[in-house]
Amino acid sequence: MAKKEKTAITPTRQENYPGWYQQVVKAADLAENSEVRGCMVIKPWGYGIWENIQRTLDDKFKATGHVNAYFPLFIPKSYFEKEAEHVEGFAKECAVVTHSRLEDDGHGGLKPAGKLTEELIVRPTSETIIGASFAKWVSSYRDLPLLINQWANVVRWELRTRLFLRTTEFLWQEGHTVHASSQEAQDETMMILKLYADFAREYLAMPVIEGRKTESEKFPGAEATYTFEAMMQDKKALQAGTSHFLGQKFAKASNIKFQSKEGVEEFAWTTSWGVTTRLIGALIMTHGDDNGVVLPPRIAPVHVVVVPIYRNEEEQKTVMAFVQELEDALKDMRYHERALQVKVDDRDLRGGEKVWEWIKKGVPVRLEVGPRDVAAASVFMGRRDMEPRQKSGMKMTDFVENVTGILDEIQNNIFKKAETFMNENIISMDDHDVFCDYFTPKNAENPEIHGGFALAHWCGDASCEENVKKDLKVTIRCIPLAQEAEEGRCIVCGKPSTKRVIYAKSY
Amino acid sequence: MAKKEKTAITPTRQENYPGWYQQVVKAADLAENSEVRGCMVIKPWGYGIWENIQRTLDDKFKATGHVNAYFPLFIPKSYFEKEAEHVEGFAKECAVVTHSRLEDDGHGGLKPAGKLTEELIVRPTSETIIGASFAKWVSSYRDLPLLINQWANVVRWELRTRLFLRTTEFLWQEGHTVHASSQEAQDETMMILKLYADFAREYLAMPVIEGRKTESEKFPGAEATYTFEAMMQDKKALQAGTSHFLGQKFAKASNIKFQSKEGVEEFAWTTSWGVTTRLIGALIMTHGDDNGVVLPPRIAPVHVVVVPIYRNEEEQKTVMAFVQELEDALKDMRYHERALQVKVDDRDLRGGEKVWEWIKKGVPVRLEVGPRDVAAASVFMGRRDMEPRQKSGMKMTDFVENVTGILDEIQNNIFKKAETFMNENIISMDDHDVFCDYFTPKNAENPEIHGGFALAHWCGDASCEENVKKDLKVTIRCIPLAQEAEEGRCIVCGKPSTKRVIYAKSY
Repeated sequence: MAKKEKTAITPTRQENYPGWYQQVVKAADLAENSEVRGCMVIKPWGYGIWENIQRTLDDKFKATGHVNAYFPLFIPKSYFEKEAEHVEGFAKECAVVTHSRLEDDGHGGLKPAGKLTEELIVRPTSETIIGASFAKWVSSYRDLPLLINQWANVVRWELRTRLFLRTTEFLWQEGHTVHASSQEAQDETMMILKLYADFAREYLAMPVIEGRKTESEKFPGAEATYTFEAMMQDKKALQAGTSHFLGQKFAKASNIKFQSKEGVEEFAWTTSWGVTTRLIGALIMTHGDDNGVVLPPRIAPVHVVVVPIYRNEEEQKTVMAFVQELEDALKDMRYHERALQVKVDDRDLRGGEKVWEWIKKGVPVRLEVGPRDVAAASVFMGRRDMEPRQKSGMKMTDFVENVTGILDEIQNNIFKKAETFMNENIISMDDHDVFCDYFTPKNAENPEIHGGFALAHWCGDASCEENVKKDLKVTIRCIPLAQEAEEGRCIVCGKPSTKRVIYAKSY
Repeated sequence: MAKKEKTAITPTRQENYPGWYQQVVKAADLAENSEVRGCMVIKPWGYGIWENIQRTLDDKFKATGHVNAYFPLFIPKSYFEKEAEHVEGFAKECAVVTHSRLEDDGHGGLKPAGKLTEELIVRPTSETIIGASFAKWVSSYRDLPLLINQWANVVRWELRTRLFLRTTEFLWQEGHTVHASSQEAQDETMMILKLYADFAREYLAMPVIEGRKTESEKFPGAEATYTFEAMMQDKKALQAGTSHFLGQKFAKASNIKFQSKEGVEEFAWTTSWGVTTRLIGALIMTHGDDNGVVLPPRIAPVHVVVVPIYRNEEEQKTVMAFVQELEDALKDMRYHERALQVKVDDRDLRGGEKVWEWIKKGVPVRLEVGPRDVAAASVFMGRRDMEPRQKSGMKMTDFVENVTGILDEIQNNIFKKAETFMNENIISMDDHDVFCDYFTPKNAENPEIHGGFALAHWCGDASCEENVKKDLKVTIRCIPLAQEAEEGRCIVCGKPSTKRVIYAKSY
């Protein structure tokens, strides 16, 4: 057996994928569990990634005519009950506020008091509370389309939680729009789906598959849910975000009506769509390696980290003067749509310790600068898309001249790597036995490792969907949009089918 | 009696100040009450102001070494009980989560289920929950200072609410920092106070008085609370934000300890500080007039609104071509730290209706462009710091050349106007009878109208403070920092005093 190379993260992805994930989040200082059940603390490095996701998406929403607003955290129970499917979907996992103060319990502690006449639900999503406002805001076709977005926290009481992937409280944006026709609302739904998928590819360097959810997987109360699904390195699917066409269901529940150009009063057509802090989990699992996180430059809080190396005060003086020069040269530069973010790590720690910390955190470019580099007016560069020990020296001026090109190269490399991985692990298949074998773990020690995504026919019956879920723990992730009609037979029951769907295990 | 000039807002400030405020918020489309008790909906125009406040302050926090993070919405009851003064300050007004789901109540409705073993409090402020994380993050002097900020929603159950000024849920930022010494923590407290006050003056065009709160007015659990107070146009004070030196109280409650350079384990020193969506209320009441909101250009969501005026399709074509030219000329310009925000209002409404809408919303510069303006290559400009009918024509090219200068002039004018108003209404006084008369409303029809701020001596006794509060509804807003020691006598009891304080009625 070959000697195992030492990695910064134990266990490795191969050894134990969920364990690896947990250790990466910790090693990169992204987030931690709080003592509040299922709620996470997003630490500065994790939050910095979220801030970049926010700013980028926010600019794109505004460029497509949306504006931000803010609606109440609490939803009266009666609002919630208005849309039957909706309430059924969320009632089992919502935090309920029943009292408005605490008072002395007579035993040195406090007990809830001020019982509310109507319980309040901490929003798991805001269709019903936003709908109540929209009903007041919309009265004529002139008020439409109404294109609103909200950045907020939401709460869904989860039993099994995992940092970023599934937490009781999470951060998200939720778009809510109102339109005068079904077609306009459907166009908005698809426009946003494309905006999301492009963002995933271009910024998160994450290849995704756009598709429609089946009836059983759609948002509670929606007419149609569209999703973009990504493949993690354990070959499981992760739903990265959704865009819903709500038809007139929520407009009817909230009474959102408008007078048409022809003077007829009609119910409006609505959409809603969102992405969450889960994207950070997706980012980690798409690009991370056995040394930690690998961040796409376009979303990294820091693009270039500079680690000065010296052994004494004299060396420190020379090195820091040079580092200052380097910092000045990079100061007003931009990378893509943001200012270039350069960080000089002059903490009182060993150089190697610092370098490894930044590898684990996933910073795209590391520069080490020691006295010999200063003498040669050079920097020693490590790239996060390459092996930790694969470093190269270059003139400082050359680095400054090429830095944006280097960052683009890293962005492209990690996207291509993820794209190749995904493409290699989507298998088109038509045989039931092959299908079953594909989803059966081969490695008893690590049951997470299985085949990948299967692109196979489905007859459209909910029972076939239900059967694979029960037998193989596999669900239909989506009906991909990019496909031609094709005659075939359902991989589960053998009945005729015209479309292939993505079957996969999932988060 | 002179004929009253028609105003866009009824009642006027003189007639009924609280009524005027309510109407301005509505007319400018800033926010509305939701059907959830005490919770507001922040509409796009109001939220746009908040976004500019956020971006500006966020940049300033980052420039002074702070980073953002995110902590749980819920605080376990037991955390809350750790700091005695703190819990006493907030127990009477907190939303309590007691259940984690809803279930069928057997009568077609839903009832709370899944009772929690420990109740959760929706954060009214986060010292205790953040302290629990900090206790894990800090172990050595090398980890200090720890400089964290959070943008979040908080809940304080208020009985009487007013949009922006006092709502059950509001948005804010809360800074939380940890230091190795009392001096460092005090320096941070004062640095942030100055950052806030400078921001208020330079961006919100709002003159403020920086000072220290008395013992009875300080934050529950703080060693010292510093405030910056602004004067509204009804001459009442508004606490615009606070910065707290927490000493070691919260460090002891949360067990935040560190090993000093000398190897000794010590409790850390902490601070916290925040401003809220209340600033928008302050902005309205500082600058607003009887025609609506007046926005300082540096914080306005739109700097220049262009209203095309035409009567037929032909005119429309000519006018819109010219407006497009104007828009192109302004497109890549910047004002202060942001891109110049220009909005062309081409909605299908009468020109006069649109112009008045933008006046009410407080946009700094309005341009009206009709066929005659196009013929002369001119624009017709109205400025929000002047009377609505006081408009002036100028060459379009001259406008483009001078637009940033015009915006600066508006910014300065509204600051100076507010500063003059405040200075004229702070009276230094030493006579008890004059003091009482000053705070007694002169106008029976409008009891809001009284003297203003009194700068008078206070002996330091809580009983004197309590007496003026009871007798005159006046509180000590702060002990101003900018003053020399001076011998005098307490305006309430006549005992010797060395300092003057600001007495005022307040929000």
